[in-house]
Amino acid sequence: MILNKLIYLLPLIALLIYETNGVEDKNPEVGANRYTPDWKSLDSRPLPGWYDQAKFGIMMHWGVYSVLGLGGEWIWYRWKVAHEFKDYFGKYVKPGVTYQDFANEFTTELFDPNKWADIIKASGAKYVVLTTKHHEGFTLWPSNYSWSWNAMDVGAHRDLVGELSTAVRKAGLRFGTYHSLMEWFHPLFLKDQSNKWKTNEFVTNKINPEMIELVEKYKPDIIWSDGDAGAPDTYWKSLDFLAWLYNDRQDEVIVNDRWGGGTACKHGGFYNCKDRYLPSVVQPHKWENALSVDHGGWSYTRQFGFNDYMTTYELISQMAQTISCGGNILINIGPTPDGRIIPLFEEILRDIGSWMSVNGESIYGTNPWTHQNDTVTDKVWYTKKEKTVYSIVLFWPKNYDVILGAVDHNTVQSIQLLGTTGNLVFKAHEDKGTVVTFPFVSPDTLRFAYVLKINFK
Amino acid sequence: MILNKLIYLLPLIALLIYETNGVEDKNPEVGANRYTPDWKSLDSRPLPGWYDQAKFGIMMHWGVYSVLGLGGEWIWYRWKVAHEFKDYFGKYVKPGVTYQDFANEFTTELFDPNKWADIIKASGAKYVVLTTKHHEGFTLWPSNYSWSWNAMDVGAHRDLVGELSTAVRKAGLRFGTYHSLMEWFHPLFLKDQSNKWKTNEFVTNKINPEMIELVEKYKPDIIWSDGDAGAPDTYWKSLDFLAWLYNDRQDEVIVNDRWGGGTACKHGGFYNCKDRYLPSVVQPHKWENALSVDHGGWSYTRQFGFNDYMTTYELISQMAQTISCGGNILINIGPTPDGRIIPLFEEILRDIGSWMSVNGESIYGTNPWTHQNDTVTDKVWYTKKEKTVYSIVLFWPKNYDVILGAVDHNTVQSIQLLGTTGNLVFKAHEDKGTVVTFPFVSPDTLRFAYVLKINFK
Amino acid sequence: MILNKLIYLLPLIALLIYETNGVEDKNPEVGANRYTPDWKSLDSRPLPGWYDQAKFGIMMHWGVYSVLGLGGEWIWYRWKVAHEFKDYFGKYVKPGVTYQDFANEFTTELFDPNKWADIIKASGAKYVVLTTKHHEGFTLWPSNYSWSWNAMDVGAHRDLVGELSTAVRKAGLRFGTYHSLMEWFHPLFLKDQSNKWKTNEFVTNKINPEMIELVEKYKPDIIWSDGDAGAPDTYWKSLDFLAWLYNDRQDEVIVNDRWGGGTACKHGGFYNCKDRYLPSVVQPHKWENALSVDHGGWSYTRQFGFNDYMTTYELISQMAQTISCGGNILINIGPTPDGRIIPLFEEILRDIGSWMSVNGESIYGTNPWTHQNDTVTDKVWYTKKEKTVYSIVLFWPKNYDVILGAVDHNTVQSIQLLGTTGNLVFKAHEDKGTVVTFPFVSPDTLRFAYVLKINFK
Amino acid sequence: MILNKLIYLLPLIALLIYETNGVEDKNPEVGANRYTPDWKSLDSRPLPGWYDQAKFGIMMHWGVYSVLGLGGEWIWYRWKVAHEFKDYFGKYVKPGVTYQDFANEFTTELFDPNKWADIIKASGAKYVVLTTKHHEGFTLWPSNYSWSWNAMDVGAHRDLVGELSTAVRKAGLRFGTYHSLMEWFHPLFLKDQSNKWKTNEFVTNKINPEMIELVEKYKPDIIWSDGDAGAPDTYWKSLDFLAWLYNDRQDEVIVNDRWGGGTACKHGGFYNCKDRYLPSVVQPHKWENALSVDHGGWSYTRQFGFNDYMTTYELISQMAQTISCGGNILINIGPTPDGRIIPLFEEILRDIGSWMSVNGESIYGTNPWTHQNDTVTDKVWYTKKEKTVYSIVLFWPKNYDVILGAVDHNTVQSIQLLGTTGNLVFKAHEDKGTVVTFPFVSPDTLRFAYVLKINFK
Repeated sequence: MILNKLIYLLPLIALLIYETNGVEDKNPEVGANRYTPDWKSLDSRPLPGWYDQAKFGIMMHWGVYSVLGLGGEWIWYRWKVAHEFKDYFGKYVKPGVTYQDFANEFTTELFDPNKWADIIKASGAKYVVLTTKHHEGFTLWPSNYSWSWNAMDVGAHRDLVGELSTAVRKAGLRFGTYHSLMEWFHPLFLKDQSNKWKTNEFVTNKINPEMIELVEKYKPDIIWSDGDAGAPDTYWKSLDFLAWLYNDRQDEVIVNDRWGGGTACKHGGFYNCKDRYLPSVVQPHKWENALSVDHGGWSYTRQFGFNDYMTTYELISQMAQTISCGGNILINIGPTPDGRIIPLFEEILRDIGSWMSVNGESIYGTNPWTHQNDTVTDKVWYTKKEKTVYSIVLFWPKNYDVILGAVDHNTVQSIQLLGTTGNLVFKAHEDKGTVVTFPFVSPDTLRFAYVLKINFK
Repeated sequence: MILNKLIYLLPLIALLIYETNGVEDKNPEVGANRYTPDWKSLDSRPLPGWYDQAKFGIMMHWGVYSVLGLGGEWIWYRWKVAHEFKDYFGKYVKPGVTYQDFANEFTTELFDPNKWADIIKASGAKYVVLTTKHHEGFTLWPSNYSWSWNAMDVGAHRDLVGELSTAVRKAGLRFGTYHSLMEWFHPLFLKDQSNKWKTNEFVTNKINPEMIELVEKYKPDIIWSDGDAGAPDTYWKSLDFLAWLYNDRQDEVIVNDRWGGGTACKHGGFYNCKDRYLPSVVQPHKWENALSVDHGGWSYTRQFGFNDYMTTYELISQMAQTISCGGNILINIGPTPDGRIIPLFEEILRDIGSWMSVNGESIYGTNPWTHQNDTVTDKVWYTKKEKTVYSIVLFWPKNYDVILGAVDHNTVQSIQLLGTTGNLVFKAHEDKGTVVTFPFVSPDTLRFAYVLKINFK
Repeated sequence: MILNKLIYLLPLIALLIYETNGVEDKNPEVGANRYTPDWKSLDSRPLPGWYDQAKFGIMMHWGVYSVLGLGGEWIWYRWKVAHEFKDYFGKYVKPGVTYQDFANEFTTELFDPNKWADIIKASGAKYVVLTTKHHEGFTLWPSNYSWSWNAMDVGAHRDLVGELSTAVRKAGLRFGTYHSLMEWFHPLFLKDQSNKWKTNEFVTNKINPEMIELVEKYKPDIIWSDGDAGAPDTYWKSLDFLAWLYNDRQDEVIVNDRWGGGTACKHGGFYNCKDRYLPSVVQPHKWENALSVDHGGWSYTRQFGFNDYMTTYELISQMAQTISCGGNILINIGPTPDGRIIPLFEEILRDIGSWMSVNGESIYGTNPWTHQNDTVTDKVWYTKKEKTVYSIVLFWPKNYDVILGAVDHNTVQSIQLLGTTGNLVFKAHEDKGTVVTFPFVSPDTLRFAYVLKINFK
Repeated sequence: MILNKLIYLLPLIALLIYETNGVEDKNPEVGANRYTPDWKSLDSRPLPGWYDQAKFGIMMHWGVYSVLGLGGEWIWYRWKVAHEFKDYFGKYVKPGVTYQDFANEFTTELFDPNKWADIIKASGAKYVVLTTKHHEGFTLWPSNYSWSWNAMDVGAHRDLVGELSTAVRKAGLRFGTYHSLMEWFHPLFLKDQSNKWKTNEFVTNKINPEMIELVEKYKPDIIWSDGDAGAPDTYWKSLDFLAWLYNDRQDEVIVNDRWGGGTACKHGGFYNCKDRYLPSVVQPHKWENALSVDHGGWSYTRQFGFNDYMTTYELISQMAQTISCGGNILINIGPTPDGRIIPLFEEILRDIGSWMSVNGESIYGTNPWTHQNDTVTDKVWYTKKEKTVYSIVLFWPKNYDVILGAVDHNTVQSIQLLGTTGNLVFKAHEDKGTVVTFPFVSPDTLRFAYVLKINFK
């Protein structure tokens, strides 16, 4: 019975941990001590504060898979191993063609990195994470360890990582590098795999030098690791890599948690846990909800129609819940092989940006509140900043009144609706709650979600 | 001075002509008399009534130019004659390549005609006009007169006109064929042109049999002619063609007005006059406003971002003005070379459709009213249907009150806002006008434009 | 029995006809009378003399079929109608691809017309016949009647007929145009065919104006017609065309005999009769043996190895027999799609040329002799020029002695072996024949065939 | 003066060395002693005897450069570094295209390894050397160390090394692997190079494992190393590699001499010294004359005409001189990117084969004689086998008499001309020489070169 009740306390406990575990430290002191290549030491590193402040980033999946524009970034595997899309390949692709044969169609000829940076900045996002190399192994930068299988040598003939990182930083955003450890079809990977990770020629010969090269060349703010394939972190030399990174490299760099079988949600920097991870209570460790605008995949998919994408409303709903529970939100879009962000994605990003320009104070730099969602009314999420609490209401109340069960009317000083002027009328709801009356607004003023700013006495 | 005042009467006169010129005839009797190949006779044919009822159609520009996705449907001319886009061609295209070399990339592999028909139907449009052949001369059907330069022989390997017409009709929509008379680079056209239209090998050898073939094969409901290149209608054999069409072919077919130098806005079926034609008063002859969602062109353009397209709001504004003035609206979108309607276009069409599902009664089957736009308040357009007048208000009134100067409050019985229930409050405005008070609605209920349905005593 | 013996006289009779039918007229008078469009009149035209003098020409099959380099110039038909080469197409070609899709790979980028002319001239040939249009319908010149399906508009972007005719003539050679009447897949041809040639839209709309264009533009010395598809000459308007050609055009033009079903070997200019036509007796009408270096086809075939080609020896053997019997020989080679004559063909042509530089006097400007081949010894062919008779011996006599049964030793004054100096020893062979003793020559002096020049008393 | 005379003795001395240095050992005993990684030890290994017996091999340069068919196997370097062929690239290649973009056109679709083996066998060659990897770095086998830059992953989709080695061995021929150490544009190579070979990441990471893989997978009979780029053998780990190869691998494997700066003509197995190396005296160490049928390059060159190739006569002349001086001859041809040996090469190879079928006993298994070429008559080369001496006469003697100054008529028992029957007449020439009278033969019997077989008393 006691246990049962403790469950209700869990969010609170998590919150306490959240508040004391260093997320809010802005400038962790570095270097006094050196990190050693073990999780105990590595996990003791305070997270650089910029990341928790930023809250919102944009991810982009871009690679040779974008050329096919079919079946997402896993298309190589789905085609050659799972034998999916037989109809398409049987009808439109020359027999015997390999995935690699498509690389020289990844031309990116219309890629304008400053235009991308502008659109992303307009969305209100504070950082960008680019797939510098996905499971296909194709590097978007001219890697010494992926010669003739990178965007400079074939197709694009450009250093896409270099160009985007420069533009993004010029726009005042942080730049992160998604990097896949495994490469489905790399013969050395397959060899190590068939040796049950007892050999590690793949890591020694390729992955480790490649990651060091990536860090030294582009100094990413985030290393967003992926694709451990269930191999242990020791196989991947992850501990050595992280110790080197933390000791010798940028103070501000942050990493995620995918560094070997079993590390997710347990070790590293912030936790991604799994794709589209979205708890409904505050978590004890800083986390990130990485999700894609597409329902089905992460990369450009030609067949997707309007209804295959999340709406701006759905994305803002995700954002509200994510921020309330202490996470960051990383929204993914898939650019085209000729280097464009399609107009629908641009519209969505600009719409989120419009919403953020009004309601951003309820997101950036906030912390979870005692409550994440309301106790009485559904679809209401809370964040707080110092003394202020924000209530993000994901609907317009039918009769203009919304009940906030979690807000004690006795403590409230005033309430505003962001984007409008003047204080709202509120009154007691039963014992402890508050009823807030929304103002009259014309339908073209506000959209998507409505944020109440609650000031306490 | 008298003349001056008459100007104010012009719309009224036009309206009288509009109402008596047969536009509303649903089923003109045909065949008692035969038409002769002269404009007097041809212009005497009553317009088939379905067209004026329909009000709203979707046009599509699709061809080899879609492959380049650059500079619109005129790209061949802009590239080879006007020498535009030198940077692009110099950087991304093999030297010496011709326009025709691109034809086998017009694959249309993802073209699903039923999907297109569904999207178009969802928009509320009642007819479709496809560029069966644009100035490039490439036919989207396997024409006997354009062998090896048509979509069956090269690239798509499909009868695109046949497939789309079937799907569109299955969805209950009418199907029209855009057809360009001229072909910029056809050697016989150039020969006749350099002979100042004194020879007409091009028309005899190609255009005339091709048009007959098109009519016989697909029985289009609209023949949307274009590209007369300033050559006389006699050069184009337009009079003969139309007499044959009116006498021997479908009762319901309707044509536009581009049949030779000087015919536009003067002869033929409905008048297009010029692209994006949009008068602000009612016209004496049935007309159509053909406009593109793109600001700049009519075909798929890869570089266009979100801001290069008209918004749904702008399109509905165009529609309100067009219908008020007695026109039809034909909204153009450019499909991709691989056969898709891009998600943004789909969103726009579905949004228009949502609006139409609430407000369609103010559009379909209506006539112009005495007034087209309001005398006092800007951005208010009128239509009528029998005794009812619709006032399309293109904004939400700041203080919920809108003044309708053109509506005599004494005559009004009741006013509703479409999409809501109950009657609105209204009162007199000065001498003769009416002030209507809008209801309170939540911001997520109505969008774009608000239609008042005015019932008279 | 008398009949039986007459058979032996046939060559002689033919020879008499040959000698009196105008082949040797160098400059037929033209224009006094006009030809009428019937065979009686047309066949009465004397053949321009240059053609019989020339004896030896080179034909070239070059077109979109060269791109595939598979199955010869009939590949379109073999692929799409006869369904041959299933393995190849199933394995190496994208499903659904059409023949026309290959046209932009017919780049001819290395085509150097002067280099071709040099090689051809070096062979000793006096005229060139190029497939300006084969059954595929693709014209190697920018025809007004084959827009976008010609070498200027797609692939090559050059006027191949214009460039080659200019170069060939600059080298002092005549230029002829192979032209196919039928086009397998032209929709108008198929329409007329299915109407059993009762309609002739194809000829009126396309073939007739195209042939006139070809003549006016390039003034060919030979019109080498082909592909009547069994349709009557009236369907093809051949009689009208030839009357126009003979009356109004070049004096020197010569045509062949493929002008409609049943005309071959019967009407027209010289007779081709059928491909690889090679009689062993003299013919009553001037004829031509058109054969290909390939055993199997006429156009570039990638899979062919050395043994799939005729050797220089075989070609010279063919030439000896052909000239002996009053024919011309037209040796065909297939250039590559990138515009080259492959080295083996160049070697063969240069080897023939070397042989001709020694032995040409036995070929050019000669006439058939009383005997075509020897009565006793196999592989010995005769030609004559004025008083001289040439005996072309296709082997080196085992013991240096060859018996010429047809040469009466009593009439012989002297005999030389071309390419050597001095007179040969000869003696009587039985009743009437002659035994000639060959000289000692080293093996690197003479090759292929050995010509005895016989001077009579 | 003494020195002067010694020069004349040099060939003799070389010959003595030649005969005692183990070339003739058929089956060197292996393994009793292990080789150590230094030249002293490695150079002490006896050459496997099969190689000197074989005398004649065929080399093939085949790779992505074959696709361009322009400027030879160095085209990448000539294009991107030396900026040659500007006209071609400016006119026919899309701007900005990289060399790697061409790899998927290396389709080899018509490659039939058994057909190649047949042709090579027909030439009389006893071994084949294939460029398994040239300076471009593209491997013709699916190397673990060249992923996505090999013929299995891109273009061909076949293990070309595997297929050819199997076919060649089935035909009874030996198989050798040309392998380039350097790769012009490999970033690790460039890095090591700019570090003046003080780092060797390229060798450790790539070259060394790749060579071991190649040996283990295909067990080549010859490792034909190339491209040391002037870097020391220690940089290339050549000594270690060879020690491993000699100790642990095939007894019969033989290598050449290109293993690092300064090793050529000094260390290793047989000596290539330099391309087209052709001394006119016998050499003290087994050597090979590697030359190309092309005058200009080693790989398929589309522009080459008949005169750009060596003739069969020239090649047989090279062979005579090479074998006389104790070398092997390795004749190179360049196959096409679609997998063919062009007909001219086939003809040449078959012609050499015909010559060998008559004269092969003067080549295979022979040794140099006391004299290499004749002392009196030019273009006469000698070989010997046991007691017999062969005199290869590269011309047909004008008056049927040839003087052999080096053959003492007193010692001669009989002389035959290979390919004919019966003994030739010979007599004394001056003091010590011999005059041989050639027989009468018809010109179609013998070609190219005439071999006298001299038997001594």
